Amino acid sequence: SIDGQRLWESLMAMAEIGPTANGGNCRLALTEEDAAGRRLLIEWCEAIGCTVRVDRVGNLFIRRPGRRDDLDPVATGSHLDTQPKGGRFDGILGVLAGLEVFRTLHDQGIVTERPLELVVWTNEEGSRFAPAMVASGAFAGEFSEEYTLSRADRDGVTLGQALAACGFAGETPLGEPRLASFFELHIEQGPVLEEEGEAIGVVTGVQGMRWFDVALRGQPAHAGPTPMAYRRDALAACARLIDRLQGHALADSSGGTRVTFGCLEIDSPSRNVIPGEVRLTVDLRHVVEAELDALEARFDRELAALTEAFGVETASERIWASPVVNFDAGCIDAVERAARAQGVPWRRMMSGAGHDAVYVSRVAPTSMIFIPCRDGISHNEAEYATPEHCALGAQVLLDAMLERANT
Amino acid sequence: SIDGQRLWESLMAMAEIGPTANGGNCRLALTEEDAAGRRLLIEWCEAIGCTVRVDRVGNLFIRRPGRRDDLDPVATGSHLDTQPKGGRFDGILGVLAGLEVFRTLHDQGIVTERPLELVVWTNEEGSRFAPAMVASGAFAGEFSEEYTLSRADRDGVTLGQALAACGFAGETPLGEPRLASFFELHIEQGPVLEEEGEAIGVVTGVQGMRWFDVALRGQPAHAGPTPMAYRRDALAACARLIDRLQGHALADSSGGTRVTFGCLEIDSPSRNVIPGEVRLTVDLRHVVEAELDALEARFDRELAALTEAFGVETASERIWASPVVNFDAGCIDAVERAARAQGVPWRRMMSGAGHDAVYVSRVAPTSMIFIPCRDGISHNEAEYATPEHCALGAQVLLDAMLERANT
Ligand SMILES: NC(=O)NCCC(=O)O
Ligand SMILES: NC(=O)NCCC(=O)O
Repeated sequence: SIDGQRLWESLMAMAEIGPTANGGNCRLALTEEDAAGRRLLIEWCEAIGCTVRVDRVGNLFIRRPGRRDDLDPVATGSHLDTQPKGGRFDGILGVLAGLEVFRTLHDQGIVTERPLELVVWTNEEGSRFAPAMVASGAFAGEFSEEYTLSRADRDGVTLGQALAACGFAGETPLGEPRLASFFELHIEQGPVLEEEGEAIGVVTGVQGMRWFDVALRGQPAHAGPTPMAYRRDALAACARLIDRLQGHALADSSGGTRVTFGCLEIDSPSRNVIPGEVRLTVDLRHVVEAELDALEARFDRELAALTEAFGVETASERIWASPVVNFDAGCIDAVERAARAQGVPWRRMMSGAGHDAVYVSRVAPTSMIFIPCRDGISHNEAEYATPEHCALGAQVLLDAMLERANT
Repeated sequence: SIDGQRLWESLMAMAEIGPTANGGNCRLALTEEDAAGRRLLIEWCEAIGCTVRVDRVGNLFIRRPGRRDDLDPVATGSHLDTQPKGGRFDGILGVLAGLEVFRTLHDQGIVTERPLELVVWTNEEGSRFAPAMVASGAFAGEFSEEYTLSRADRDGVTLGQALAACGFAGETPLGEPRLASFFELHIEQGPVLEEEGEAIGVVTGVQGMRWFDVALRGQPAHAGPTPMAYRRDALAACARLIDRLQGHALADSSGGTRVTFGCLEIDSPSRNVIPGEVRLTVDLRHVVEAELDALEARFDRELAALTEAFGVETASERIWASPVVNFDAGCIDAVERAARAQGVPWRRMMSGAGHDAVYVSRVAPTSMIFIPCRDGISHNEAEYATPEHCALGAQVLLDAMLERANT
């Protein structure tokens, strides 16, 4: 069985790279910090005899040989990049639990039938380069190599340029190696497991999500002499949109509707200037695809209504859509068996967050394992999971992987 | 009478310093562009025998001697700094009309009884350093020298540091020279004169204004798995505040209530992170002081209500309050006589914008002259006033100043 203490120490060692003021981490994708995290992982893995390949969008494939290296590997993995003020577990746990699986097998001299593969997916968060999960998407054929490499951050640096700059532009073609199955361990990032007193989530799928870039154009004018009725205030219009959609989402008693406005920027802001132009990001989610369609239609209507109400022109671009995903029944069952074997309370559940497993599930049988995180909080420096839950999750991962690697 | 062509050419020459993409100007206070504008003006004034003094907050006093230099001067002036995307007339017209007054008197060999003074006030806009009109306020004793010099821009550069860096840190003590009277010509920056077909506004006073720095603190969390009911979304709270106050101001049928949110910043924004902290600026105005009190009280209530509704902590600091101002009856009458003499339609009116005349009026008899601007638009690159209206305003200024300088 896995060594929870060692797993915890590797989590804390990784957290020393790109620390933030309040105990979190900032390792935005393909920055020097992200690269340093990858190098540390590679060092650890090479020390136990693994080999490393890098594909054309910077995904790392770290192999532990099996008895039958002609067979496709059973894989696990997640991401090492974080939000600007991110936590120490989101993504990192999934990667370092994979490392812990390898170390445990190494200590015990176990060789599996199939080879095992630990994957670090590039730019999962979508914070530096939109969309999220872009590199696992490229691996799975959702995004072309050109599209992926040309994603640009706010300063105009492309993902391809950032890859080259940080030394992780690889040569392995996209889609290689083929995976026999894929398991991803992750913190839940929501409150359900903690509230229900359950230790393991057997993840059956992921809700659908859509991202939009919105621009509102009114007219900048002086805050003092411009009568309210003459104004074409892009920020006031934006506030109406946010308030209406927020109210709509809150009113859904099923709790299934999720609406978030993460970024908002005023062009040339000044205290005594009526904002003439605002750019906004919108994140819409739902576990039911048809409900997500209805939510998008409502968003479109509310946006269109701003022109009449505030005299602003509106533009909206859907830059990403990830449909509702259902994971592989066999992989879900494998996780459930491993969870049952631990004798702890568990539940089947959908994921509210996107994960690399979403895209990997298109090309390999896939499922995920969740553990609780404190107060359900993630994308926050205060994100926390207990050493016991981390160890438990890693154990379930090991058991599920072994089941698939030896059959 | 003044030379409208020459005035227009000086306006267009000034507009070549710090031009913006769409025909406006960016000469933020005490930047290299602002300094270049000042140097050009000084060159023009010295060419007609004027002398220049600079006070301890960078205000320029440009003197044209009179017959009785023991008497206090009759003064005019405004500002040369602009908004980030400002126009070519706001402030600049008042300064260059003063120059045109001096040039006209120079050409005709007229020496007034009292000396004349053209003043360029530092940082009127309040865009780089808050509050607005801080240096005319310092001159008038509203702000101490220490307070004024310690105002900081977004990068932490203080007004004092910027003064030294751009070469306009002067030695003249604050409050010197004493002014016998002050007239400021300005574009209206609102739609009234244009709509009413009037060419001159005889300005009787200025509405009251208050500025606030507001912070909303909720909790950053993941956009996907965090149920709406669990969220403490600082941006959603902010949107509610803006929408409510906007609606309140629009509902005031007198049109007297003005509410503007010019700047809004999310801490560490990311598309899939619920905003945990938002900072916002608020600008409240009214022509009636008691109504402004009521407006501030409503703002406080709406802000306080966000804690219950959104689970956010709120903090608000009133960083500036400029009470309703009534100008000097004698100066108002002088402007009215000069306007009547032109035989054009005119009206008495209050100013919606703050101007340096607000603070100067505390230490010298003061009034202002407005001319129309196209579509009432200001604080916008498209700001425009016709050459004819500029010339007319300068003529009224000349006549009002001559009346006061020779009696
Ligand atoms: N797990 C995670 O934070 N993924 C980012 C993609 C998303 O926004 O759900
Ligand atoms: N005239 C002008 O733009 N003044 C700035 C102060 C204000 O915001 O009214």
